[in-house]
Amino acid sequence: MTTPTTAITAIAQQYTRVRQQSIRLCEPLEAEDYTVQPVDDVSPPKWHLGHSTWFFENFLLVPNLPDYQLFDERLNWFFNSYYESQGPRILRSNRGNMTRPTLAAILDYRKHVDRAMEQLLDRGEATVEDLTELGLHHEQQHQELLLCDIKYILGSNPLYPTYRNEPDRPTVRQPHRFIPVAGGQYSIGHEGAGFRWDNELSRHDVLLQQFGIGSRLVTNGEYLEFMEDGGYRRFELWQMDGIAWARTLPVKAPLYWYREGDAWKQYTLNRGLADLDPDIPVTHLSWYEADAYARWAGARLATEFEWEVACRQLQPDVPRHGNWVEREDFHPLAATSLDDHQLMGHCWEWTNSAYLPYPRYPRPEGALGEYNGKFMINQMVLRGGSCATPGSHIRPTYRNFFQPEKRWQFTGIRLAKDL
Amino acid sequence: MTTPTTAITAIAQQYTRVRQQSIRLCEPLEAEDYTVQPVDDVSPPKWHLGHSTWFFENFLLVPNLPDYQLFDERLNWFFNSYYESQGPRILRSNRGNMTRPTLAAILDYRKHVDRAMEQLLDRGEATVEDLTELGLHHEQQHQELLLCDIKYILGSNPLYPTYRNEPDRPTVRQPHRFIPVAGGQYSIGHEGAGFRWDNELSRHDVLLQQFGIGSRLVTNGEYLEFMEDGGYRRFELWQMDGIAWARTLPVKAPLYWYREGDAWKQYTLNRGLADLDPDIPVTHLSWYEADAYARWAGARLATEFEWEVACRQLQPDVPRHGNWVEREDFHPLAATSLDDHQLMGHCWEWTNSAYLPYPRYPRPEGALGEYNGKFMINQMVLRGGSCATPGSHIRPTYRNFFQPEKRWQFTGIRLAKDL
Amino acid sequence: MTTPTTAITAIAQQYTRVRQQSIRLCEPLEAEDYTVQPVDDVSPPKWHLGHSTWFFENFLLVPNLPDYQLFDERLNWFFNSYYESQGPRILRSNRGNMTRPTLAAILDYRKHVDRAMEQLLDRGEATVEDLTELGLHHEQQHQELLLCDIKYILGSNPLYPTYRNEPDRPTVRQPHRFIPVAGGQYSIGHEGAGFRWDNELSRHDVLLQQFGIGSRLVTNGEYLEFMEDGGYRRFELWQMDGIAWARTLPVKAPLYWYREGDAWKQYTLNRGLADLDPDIPVTHLSWYEADAYARWAGARLATEFEWEVACRQLQPDVPRHGNWVEREDFHPLAATSLDDHQLMGHCWEWTNSAYLPYPRYPRPEGALGEYNGKFMINQMVLRGGSCATPGSHIRPTYRNFFQPEKRWQFTGIRLAKDL
Amino acid sequence: MTTPTTAITAIAQQYTRVRQQSIRLCEPLEAEDYTVQPVDDVSPPKWHLGHSTWFFENFLLVPNLPDYQLFDERLNWFFNSYYESQGPRILRSNRGNMTRPTLAAILDYRKHVDRAMEQLLDRGEATVEDLTELGLHHEQQHQELLLCDIKYILGSNPLYPTYRNEPDRPTVRQPHRFIPVAGGQYSIGHEGAGFRWDNELSRHDVLLQQFGIGSRLVTNGEYLEFMEDGGYRRFELWQMDGIAWARTLPVKAPLYWYREGDAWKQYTLNRGLADLDPDIPVTHLSWYEADAYARWAGARLATEFEWEVACRQLQPDVPRHGNWVEREDFHPLAATSLDDHQLMGHCWEWTNSAYLPYPRYPRPEGALGEYNGKFMINQMVLRGGSCATPGSHIRPTYRNFFQPEKRWQFTGIRLAKDL
Repeated sequence: MTTPTTAITAIAQQYTRVRQQSIRLCEPLEAEDYTVQPVDDVSPPKWHLGHSTWFFENFLLVPNLPDYQLFDERLNWFFNSYYESQGPRILRSNRGNMTRPTLAAILDYRKHVDRAMEQLLDRGEATVEDLTELGLHHEQQHQELLLCDIKYILGSNPLYPTYRNEPDRPTVRQPHRFIPVAGGQYSIGHEGAGFRWDNELSRHDVLLQQFGIGSRLVTNGEYLEFMEDGGYRRFELWQMDGIAWARTLPVKAPLYWYREGDAWKQYTLNRGLADLDPDIPVTHLSWYEADAYARWAGARLATEFEWEVACRQLQPDVPRHGNWVEREDFHPLAATSLDDHQLMGHCWEWTNSAYLPYPRYPRPEGALGEYNGKFMINQMVLRGGSCATPGSHIRPTYRNFFQPEKRWQFTGIRLAKDL
Repeated sequence: MTTPTTAITAIAQQYTRVRQQSIRLCEPLEAEDYTVQPVDDVSPPKWHLGHSTWFFENFLLVPNLPDYQLFDERLNWFFNSYYESQGPRILRSNRGNMTRPTLAAILDYRKHVDRAMEQLLDRGEATVEDLTELGLHHEQQHQELLLCDIKYILGSNPLYPTYRNEPDRPTVRQPHRFIPVAGGQYSIGHEGAGFRWDNELSRHDVLLQQFGIGSRLVTNGEYLEFMEDGGYRRFELWQMDGIAWARTLPVKAPLYWYREGDAWKQYTLNRGLADLDPDIPVTHLSWYEADAYARWAGARLATEFEWEVACRQLQPDVPRHGNWVEREDFHPLAATSLDDHQLMGHCWEWTNSAYLPYPRYPRPEGALGEYNGKFMINQMVLRGGSCATPGSHIRPTYRNFFQPEKRWQFTGIRLAKDL
Repeated sequence: MTTPTTAITAIAQQYTRVRQQSIRLCEPLEAEDYTVQPVDDVSPPKWHLGHSTWFFENFLLVPNLPDYQLFDERLNWFFNSYYESQGPRILRSNRGNMTRPTLAAILDYRKHVDRAMEQLLDRGEATVEDLTELGLHHEQQHQELLLCDIKYILGSNPLYPTYRNEPDRPTVRQPHRFIPVAGGQYSIGHEGAGFRWDNELSRHDVLLQQFGIGSRLVTNGEYLEFMEDGGYRRFELWQMDGIAWARTLPVKAPLYWYREGDAWKQYTLNRGLADLDPDIPVTHLSWYEADAYARWAGARLATEFEWEVACRQLQPDVPRHGNWVEREDFHPLAATSLDDHQLMGHCWEWTNSAYLPYPRYPRPEGALGEYNGKFMINQMVLRGGSCATPGSHIRPTYRNFFQPEKRWQFTGIRLAKDL
Repeated sequence: MTTPTTAITAIAQQYTRVRQQSIRLCEPLEAEDYTVQPVDDVSPPKWHLGHSTWFFENFLLVPNLPDYQLFDERLNWFFNSYYESQGPRILRSNRGNMTRPTLAAILDYRKHVDRAMEQLLDRGEATVEDLTELGLHHEQQHQELLLCDIKYILGSNPLYPTYRNEPDRPTVRQPHRFIPVAGGQYSIGHEGAGFRWDNELSRHDVLLQQFGIGSRLVTNGEYLEFMEDGGYRRFELWQMDGIAWARTLPVKAPLYWYREGDAWKQYTLNRGLADLDPDIPVTHLSWYEADAYARWAGARLATEFEWEVACRQLQPDVPRHGNWVEREDFHPLAATSLDDHQLMGHCWEWTNSAYLPYPRYPRPEGALGEYNGKFMINQMVLRGGSCATPGSHIRPTYRNFFQPEKRWQFTGIRLAKDL
């Protein structure tokens, strides 16, 4: 028989904190905002609240808590995202048509599951801890998606409502330079304790040639220069697929930039539609735009290996893995502080690495094997973490990934250069 | 100078009654139900509430009420449906992505416009009366759409929520027979006083040959026989376009019929998902299905002219035009009374007439000319009026029209036959 | 036992003449021209040669000629056009991908079938005659399609090759006027002997009101005025569906009109790309364009009933049905003679009648019932006959039909007007 | 002034040989086969003949041969494939609709350009040699495409015509084993003289861990076991994108496999539709299928680096680069010899490497920079070379690349395994 340990108590506290944070993020919403799915990528906020709860019910409670009563067996169909192993599910593109279960029902669902999770964690079973931690990181991913999706829902509405009114972080204009990183043999991937996804394991060595890494992210002002230099029309800067992609854009600019007369405006969560701040990092770009910009600037994107090595050199005191100290300074990129190299907590940085398995990566079996291992094609790696990423969810070895045309995440550009 | 007349007072009362009815129809909804657009044809309920209000603001108040203050000039973009003459507007398929303006804001909009309309109607200007009456009939059309759209939103949700629980009308099994109508020369179209759309005017004579008209609508039970006889697979019963259309159906059955094991269930607003009642009229059919069924039954659909003549013969006491006595017995077709020939207030009946102008039809100029005159291609006429049609909006000369594949309206089948 | 009759001899002669004409129409083609299908509507010329042959093999020889040997049983799959009753068949959109059977093989197929048909017709069976006549009219329809499809294949190629070089008919500028036609009761539909499709039967009376019919077709020059008056941008002239359709046009002009600097050029089969002749009938228009033009001109399109009555009044000596005297003056509309009212042999004239069954129209059973009866939805009637229609295939009661957006046929505009 | 050198003479001979080979490959075709484009990826054979000629005209003759007369300036529009820098061009999907220029005209074009190239090469200018060699390798790529496209045109035709009747190479059943390759630091990329594409340069070192490489390609028989074990339905074997892709397949099998009763048939160029040979390499697979098969087999795909290292170990005598000794034994994979490790000249082998630039890869400027550098996203690397690849076009450092769903090339599977 097992007894509750301190570790278990810690996880129970984390459980409460992370679960409450999801609710807090939705507080500024109007009832209508919870339900819609304006494009396939953007899920209804209430769906995120339900899906992250289903994760605990389905993977923790059902297998581990005897006598657990499902809240409503019909919800599996609604809240399974893509787990082939977990049965049939709603077409992703159909999520925004489901007015029921209502938000009220989903909040009841959360309470039901939270109470049961409390019981389960009380039992202090060691095997449950890892899965709960994984479920909480899963929920943190959905917290980031929540903010991105909310931004899309509000930012594509012609009334341009603000999400919440917070003072912006002060911005400071800072020169850009390339910081040299020596060539050589480096270890890549997660090591030691702390949470990590399976795709960060299989730590291994790579050879790098000497290169320079940008001292900060590219700014709105710099990106505007690219645009004014005909950047979107100069095909020699683009990948072939990128040319085709850019032709489909109604506005040749980052997402949420809107033209008003001669000036560009930018929609941000804190300020609604407002003047473009030239000194904050440019964000909401596709990989195609990041790649073309870098070529225009006479530079290139870093590989994910270069990025990880540079990150350790520039911010040696960053912990190797996230911890549960939440950052309090959540600022959805109206503006971001410029007091460091902006390596973490500003934008997800597109790299020039495809999302592929590390050597000897073992695709896990079962449902959790579907988590990272079945997306390893047609996606590019992003590194860093954005202003929408929970602080305890950021670490130097984190491998985020998206298709190259996606840009509703807070994505940005850091330049690199052969030296 | 004009003074308020009795007529104006009547219109003001009608205004109040019709406008309140739109709100009443939405009362059973949850907050989430107001916002979504699961398919292009189905508009969000809150959009209907806003659009019907915009009609009064844009066509009545702005031109006629001095010093009228727009509620919010940005709403024109949201609530213009298709009037090319009234400026740019939201893509129809985008209505369901707009969480703002919120329902609360739209209800404020309605109050603002209602107060102004009260002022305007107080002025007793004769020219305003006609336009207001037209606006109210326009709103009644949207009341019918509201019910159809609500049914789609609820009836395509796997939880199959009921709309409201009302006792069904008792159903009686009644034999079907063909009632002969004599050949000859008949007058078609609206005459006399009372409201009518422009497309009912240009009363004119047509020649008809003798025919028989079905004594009642086709029932669920009869339609099921057609299905069990291989109706959906027997191409010789179908139009070429209908074959192609039927191939795309995930379920070869009327809309809202769901298979459960060996039995068919039907979703209705009153009862949710329940056993099929074989004795009530089959509804939610495309023209293709109605046409194929009629051929299977050795019959055909009536032309709109035959229908209008038969209607007058079978129900001679039906007023030539609707009046403002509201039927109280709104029953969204869980079941319908069978105490008459079901000519009005049960289903919109597909005819075999294309929607084309009557001889000498004058397409009106200006925005109101867009109302009926610009849809005169690719649509088929429906006659009668459904259980979702406001009673004062039904009359024998009414020409409803939809594309042949549409079936989210309460559409049904009445047979006709050469004699 | 039957003996060959003179009638059978006549049909055998007609068989030879019509079949040879299909080959003659293809003579100007290069080998490559026979195979492609640039859009779904345009079938490869060699497909027409095969399909019209399959018709005789499948409907005449197989059922009626004992011991007939199929040329190649696999060809049914290639050359069945849309007969559901005749088994599976190639996707229509896939016709242009089939390089085999080659043209040479198809010409062998024609010879094989022609020899067998000779035998069959020699037997002098009366029931065969009607079907053969029908098969020949079917082939004549495909002769018209051949010319339309050839024009598309050549006219959408940037080298704009001519089809064959024939002198144009001289054109004469002729004033347009409206010729009055009295109101009253008229008989519509085919009567007497001679070939006709099933859809022309069921002769019946209609009531018409007095109207005026255009004395000639609308010309290129007149249509250009409409264009220069902003015709394509003035939404009040269009049907809603037409506005949407016109927005998809890369060039806002009739098909085969190309802009070169400040001038319009027109591709014609006889002359390739050449200056627009303002005095010949405008052709290759959709119903949407015809309808909008008529509204701009303060007129309207005629109904098919008005057209048939007017045709009889203007050209009383036109035979009620086609006969087998072939016109020799085939001119694919580089220019057309203007010495009559242009009612037949110039353009198919869009009417404002939907293609629907005449009263008491009996949809034939079996494969031939699929011929006209299963297209009676979503199409508009055209009357007259074009410069590409074989002369013996034209008659006043002929009902051609196409969807309103089609314009690769030689379609044109005749105005009508309420008087 | 320059004089012809031996090197120039050699290139002139190569020019003649390679250019003739393109014509030879087309000899078995019927006239109709030259023109069609059944899917976007498959270009008409006559387009390849024109495009490869345009390459010499546009990049060699126009800039370098004074007084060169364009054959026909309008051909640039037809035969530019994707060079943004070389002006407007036909939509790729439209190539199969162009019946003109005819094959005869294109053969004239080839002669015109060949005569001029003879003159140009006679001048013995050193700078011309490299470009000519590049143009010849470009033409060899199109020779491979020609065979793949011809196979698609013939193999998707229900008559399944053979391309040419050649005896198959004898096949021998050979056991499969994993050959160990030691971990360590290896050099990757082209070195020394001989032709190579820009994307093979930037030779650099990589670190590999010990692994095993399959001793031969996976066979039809082995792949059939995977299918019979439910391979296409077992989602845990697939990438998410692969599951979605496989759902769209009408036949769950490699391209050109057809089910006949209980047996599988395979279309090959030499034999038409014939019994599946279980001992020859399985080919015409997507990356998704290759990846799923490898996982089912308890193995994985090699990276392109592992492949290059293993290739050198298994076939140390393979020249580092192609030379102009043509293999005579072209066998379009009805069957292939099994007398070696099948590393070259059997199938293009999918790797698990995305197509990305090598470190310090310099994207060339100008039109030739569009050649390889603008496709570096969304594609996977294939290594080896297929039975359709000209022998002098194969080398161990060659990086072929396609999107993961493509399978009309002769693609195959070699397994790898962690040791």
